[in-house]
Amino acid sequence: EIVTAIESALGDGPLKGRRVLVTSGPTHEPIDPVRYIANRSSGAQGSALGHALAALGADVTFVTGPAEVPPPAGVDVVRVETAREMLAATEAALPVDAAIFAAAVADWHVAGSEQKIKKTGTTPVLEFSENPDILARVAQRDRDRPRLVVGFAAETENVLAHAEAKRTRKGCDWIVANDVSPATGIMGGTENAVTLITETGAEEWPRAGKADVARRLAERIADALGPA
Amino acid sequence: EIVTAIESALGDGPLKGRRVLVTSGPTHEPIDPVRYIANRSSGAQGSALGHALAALGADVTFVTGPAEVPPPAGVDVVRVETAREMLAATEAALPVDAAIFAAAVADWHVAGSEQKIKKTGTTPVLEFSENPDILARVAQRDRDRPRLVVGFAAETENVLAHAEAKRTRKGCDWIVANDVSPATGIMGGTENAVTLITETGAEEWPRAGKADVARRLAERIADALGPA
Repeated sequence: EIVTAIESALGDGPLKGRRVLVTSGPTHEPIDPVRYIANRSSGAQGSALGHALAALGADVTFVTGPAEVPPPAGVDVVRVETAREMLAATEAALPVDAAIFAAAVADWHVAGSEQKIKKTGTTPVLEFSENPDILARVAQRDRDRPRLVVGFAAETENVLAHAEAKRTRKGCDWIVANDVSPATGIMGGTENAVTLITETGAEEWPRAGKADVARRLAERIADALGPA
Repeated sequence: EIVTAIESALGDGPLKGRRVLVTSGPTHEPIDPVRYIANRSSGAQGSALGHALAALGADVTFVTGPAEVPPPAGVDVVRVETAREMLAATEAALPVDAAIFAAAVADWHVAGSEQKIKKTGTTPVLEFSENPDILARVAQRDRDRPRLVVGFAAETENVLAHAEAKRTRKGCDWIVANDVSPATGIMGGTENAVTLITETGAEEWPRAGKADVARRLAERIADALGPA
């Protein structure tokens, strides 16, 4: 970690002078004071990406939900719990040159209960409300839209078709698509197999360690932003 | 940990020769391949209790959900995820002399989806089914009922009244009641303030570290079981 901090402080990397936002980890959505809805994102890919971007000289704001994997050294860490908190932290971090949305954000939140729900013989009904779509909100901003907006698509079926549709629907520039079916071992694991979808098509990258995938993506981001 | 292992191997403690079951941690109930319902139990009190019982010489089977705090040394660890898995592991551990149910078991599970639920514009409806009541099932067994069955009650309001009602309703011998309102900092924290409810009444214990609460409870269990 000390090495990274030194690298990024002294570094004359291609992202020197660039501000980059990374979101990472799961969000937790409270059901009541003791229960919550979570997801299996460990934050490993997001942390690796924050590390790789900082190592190329970027000034990284790292907005993270309650992840298992700790945030990287050499970035500004903003800790949040819910999707709504993540949106607020994300908007507070703008303007940035590039925004990478690697967090696995809950699609819904529960109309919260202030007291613990008791077992009463009848099963409870949870009322869900849709969470803000952080990726789409940022990608479709009139003011302070980052030059490069990158989303992640975690799918379990028809990965490529879902991801290409997502790129268009959200208005983002790139989508990093991966298959998080339990059989792949990717969510919560150490490797990732992604397809990068850009304006010009889809590139399937070979399965590799999350650090390698992060380095490759950080270099692509540096290429896309060009010299500062 | 080595010290504990030696203590419990060499120990001539008051629980030597006794088989004790401890459940600990949260359960996770899948919603779909990536989402699940969790709760804020860290497993700290359950792990401390397993440790304290082993230190008094007990032969401990430790059935744990996905907890943050690791299981203690010197116990037989059985890892589970859902309430239904916890019931199966618990029943498989019988017969025991005493069973302590410190896990925060989800009351409900979701009729699981095999594919990730997609956002479609309409909010999803989750169908819940009640989970098995592990404490009541064990407390009300005809065959192999442990001599001492101890439940935990995690409440956020009317702690004592809810806990006394729970002792009667479940058919267990003791209830360890605590207030898990977020303001107490108990769930996920290092201290606990419990009220022990037995056949003869309620004893309020002073707030103390979870290890101290565990030692005191383990000693009471040893007293209740008497010489082996």
